[in-house]
Amino acid sequence: MSHTLILIRGESEWNELNLFTGWEDVDLSENGHRQARKAGKILQEEGIIPDVAYTSFLKRSIHTLNHILEQMDEEYIPVHKSWRLNERHYGALQGLNKSDVAARYGEEQVMLWRRAYDICPPRLEEDDERNPRRSPAYRFVPGEELPMAESLKMTIERVVPYYETRIREDLHNGKTVIVAAHGNSLRALVKYLDHIPDDQISDIDIARDIPLVYELDEDCRPVSHRYLGDAEAVRRELEKAKNHWRGFE
Amino acid sequence: MSHTLILIRGESEWNELNLFTGWEDVDLSENGHRQARKAGKILQEEGIIPDVAYTSFLKRSIHTLNHILEQMDEEYIPVHKSWRLNERHYGALQGLNKSDVAARYGEEQVMLWRRAYDICPPRLEEDDERNPRRSPAYRFVPGEELPMAESLKMTIERVVPYYETRIREDLHNGKTVIVAAHGNSLRALVKYLDHIPDDQISDIDIARDIPLVYELDEDCRPVSHRYLGDAEAVRRELEKAKNHWRGFE
Repeated sequence: MSHTLILIRGESEWNELNLFTGWEDVDLSENGHRQARKAGKILQEEGIIPDVAYTSFLKRSIHTLNHILEQMDEEYIPVHKSWRLNERHYGALQGLNKSDVAARYGEEQVMLWRRAYDICPPRLEEDDERNPRRSPAYRFVPGEELPMAESLKMTIERVVPYYETRIREDLHNGKTVIVAAHGNSLRALVKYLDHIPDDQISDIDIARDIPLVYELDEDCRPVSHRYLGDAEAVRRELEKAKNHWRGFE
Repeated sequence: MSHTLILIRGESEWNELNLFTGWEDVDLSENGHRQARKAGKILQEEGIIPDVAYTSFLKRSIHTLNHILEQMDEEYIPVHKSWRLNERHYGALQGLNKSDVAARYGEEQVMLWRRAYDICPPRLEEDDERNPRRSPAYRFVPGEELPMAESLKMTIERVVPYYETRIREDLHNGKTVIVAAHGNSLRALVKYLDHIPDDQISDIDIARDIPLVYELDEDCRPVSHRYLGDAEAVRRELEKAKNHWRGFE
């Protein structure tokens, strides 16, 4: 029985704007829409056909997934959405410009927020309109589970249990699974699967719109992983992801 | 606690072609895409906000739903897809032209297939490429559950148990439910909810792309139902649905 896990993330409208995105619900960029369709074509060509899909509550990941499934003529497969696959919550930094944040808090503090494993950006105030407890999107999630800001560690601590309790079961049953999510929620999965140490995970970049395919053994331990498609495109996207100021994912 | 059920169907590319559609997986027409977005706007304006969605395995209903949810900024809600909400399976008639079928089988027989409650069109042969057991879309559905042709009665017999075991529970829990489906799978729900006699249900038409909203009591019995939006548009769409040769839905 084969056990295949496909990871994918898209390019949002805010990608080029130097803004902290996090849970801000921005759409894909024009290029993101196009590249997601291309990712679907590549999966089709490689004959890697998802049986079940997981995605976040954020429309950029839902649209990436929808494009892929439409391209593959696979729109009938089950799609499970969970806030636990959302991007890292950047707290009070969300929607702010990099330069403004650096001017206000200093470059060193900003570096910590983006590179340290366990340091959390400023929390949202309860009455902040960005508070997820005030958003209709999270109306059925118990308020106490919703973050007001997250370190990378906190993000991982809500992604991994979701993988362990939901996604892994499908893999175990021989289903090919696609997860359309975000830079940091996918880092959580990569860290877990490949046993990346805490102090190294923020150096791992995940290319946008290129399917990253894990082959797993019977116990769902990774045997191999690879990006699909043209090696030059993969190199270019990884370079872009690396150069992109990581805090904005 | 309010109990609201929204029913919606779209207009497919084959709508004007005089072809039996059934389980043939054709997309929405251009007008169908446009009208589905409009339906989302109307629901938004009326403040009828779905908490959970159900749809079929067929892309025309999935696309109708996707347009509505995108328009309402509600793409994060759970969407459950089931083949049990598919259109009636028209067996060996699927993809055939009305005139060809009438020429071959006679007008009287065709009238029976489209109007009689319990008469089934010719079944597909096992090796027919339209056999759903040969389609990847139904690869996880036990083969013996999949129809090779259906009367309206047979359609209703697979839709109603799905409503009773899945959809009604959400309604019972106070969720506003949207079902994006097809002429005959929605007829099944309307027959069940409004206790329409067998010999009258094929005379009930459901307008395309206009949300049909049921308010239910605590025991999920209908209190009222109405089409949303402009009365003239409703009248026009109902007229179109009535004049459209019903066998093609």
